[in-house]
Amino acid sequence: MFYIIDILGTIAFSISGVLVALNKKMDAFGILIIAFVTAVGGGTLRDILIGETPVSWMKDITFVYVVLASTIMAIIFKSKIDYLRKSLFLFDTIGIGLYTVVGVEKGISAGLHPIICIALGTMSACFGGVIRDILCNEIPVIFRKEIYATACILGGIAYFIIKRLPLEGNFVFIIAGLVVIVTRILAVKFKLRLPNLY
Amino acid sequence: MFYIIDILGTIAFSISGVLVALNKKMDAFGILIIAFVTAVGGGTLRDILIGETPVSWMKDITFVYVVLASTIMAIIFKSKIDYLRKSLFLFDTIGIGLYTVVGVEKGISAGLHPIICIALGTMSACFGGVIRDILCNEIPVIFRKEIYATACILGGIAYFIIKRLPLEGNFVFIIAGLVVIVTRILAVKFKLRLPNLY
Amino acid sequence: MFYIIDILGTIAFSISGVLVALNKKMDAFGILIIAFVTAVGGGTLRDILIGETPVSWMKDITFVYVVLASTIMAIIFKSKIDYLRKSLFLFDTIGIGLYTVVGVEKGISAGLHPIICIALGTMSACFGGVIRDILCNEIPVIFRKEIYATACILGGIAYFIIKRLPLEGNFVFIIAGLVVIVTRILAVKFKLRLPNLY
Repeated sequence: MFYIIDILGTIAFSISGVLVALNKKMDAFGILIIAFVTAVGGGTLRDILIGETPVSWMKDITFVYVVLASTIMAIIFKSKIDYLRKSLFLFDTIGIGLYTVVGVEKGISAGLHPIICIALGTMSACFGGVIRDILCNEIPVIFRKEIYATACILGGIAYFIIKRLPLEGNFVFIIAGLVVIVTRILAVKFKLRLPNLY
Repeated sequence: MFYIIDILGTIAFSISGVLVALNKKMDAFGILIIAFVTAVGGGTLRDILIGETPVSWMKDITFVYVVLASTIMAIIFKSKIDYLRKSLFLFDTIGIGLYTVVGVEKGISAGLHPIICIALGTMSACFGGVIRDILCNEIPVIFRKEIYATACILGGIAYFIIKRLPLEGNFVFIIAGLVVIVTRILAVKFKLRLPNLY
Repeated sequence: MFYIIDILGTIAFSISGVLVALNKKMDAFGILIIAFVTAVGGGTLRDILIGETPVSWMKDITFVYVVLASTIMAIIFKSKIDYLRKSLFLFDTIGIGLYTVVGVEKGISAGLHPIICIALGTMSACFGGVIRDILCNEIPVIFRKEIYATACILGGIAYFIIKRLPLEGNFVFIIAGLVVIVTRILAVKFKLRLPNLY
């Protein structure tokens, strides 16, 4: 089941990449690369930092196919994507919930400190979008608004709190993921954002 | 002989970096870094992703000297570089042909799927320019126009098709490289480009 | 003692990151990431290139706390930071002196060529700022002005010259670091900069 969520997340991330790239008037190759980077960039950075190479998308070709198919679909149906905005938001949110917890667990199995694990989880979930924005010559959107990374950080913290309870591993995984998802949905619903400090 | 081609490619890439950096009014240090990144950035990213570290330019100092010499030459003769435009285009094109095939073969020896190998080859050839453009605060040029990466992808596909034929290894190498080179030359000659999709 | 210098350097780098991020009107998360990247980005790139993973800040959590504390302090006292400009310049300068020599020595223990070691030292000291500027959508400031990287390169060269003398290891370390620091201070005092070549 986690695999299916992972694929739904990849689809949502790819489509978000396609939309940004179309906006920047890139050609087909540029669009594909941006979609790919948005989908796998965070996990790739995580793998490189902990030294787990070849990075994960090189070992499971499925994700390359998913990105390819999503990109082609998104280009063909680009005028219709607006109707999907809600589903895409949901996929994306479920995706970051999953990626966060996967990142945290990779950190744990590499024997790293909880704070580093939370950082790795947040990175897995958010840095695909950061690299996308850099390649598109924008200041990364998550540095400027919306509770996005913050949801991932809260989910990561939740993971380590719940892990102390006498629960089964899968439960910890799911509850921490839900913390990310619920935080993000509430933040968007109530237009919460981090305070500006300047 | 491949070594000589590699050096010619490095020269062409370095000079292209110098020209972009001069355009951005960088100082001597900035110019050198941009030249260096343009020349070795793609291969460095490839090595990091597959975990082949220290990355290759750290192990063969020749390329550092080549970049240094090319940069100094390009700065001194910058007003004359226009006369070399054709040779530079040729070196650059031969360079990406070579880099593509080298990247594909590194992927194969790391036991990766053909699609990943083709991606690695394309990355080796093209991502030096991508990093150059990011450092210069531009949207990477290969995401916007010209059949450049596409030539590398075709060369990579050709590699795997030809490899099934009963040919000697070097032939596969050369023919795949020529596919990249010829595609690129034809694309420039006939002003082919990928369709815009926006 | 080196550990204390390292922490002072980290504080100075973090604060410089906070100032740039505030300038770009980032939110709290963005500011923290920029501070973090400025402080550890150079060393991270160095570790990735030579394959020393997990990268160093993942193994010593102290630096994460230092960045966090510096960031919070810098945000709270941002209107007062101007009074600290001189101390910050000093911390930053001592920091790059230290980072340069640490980077050079990491290269040596990885068995790399002196030129590569000098490049690694310079990268450790300067590339946090480069990544900061890229994330903030600016052309990296060290590519455009000031003797900054140049001071690190000179310090690296000094390291290899002094190492041939019959001196104790710590002396080599300190003198090379001082070369960086003195060069940088003199350059700022006398407004030296690399010649423009365009």
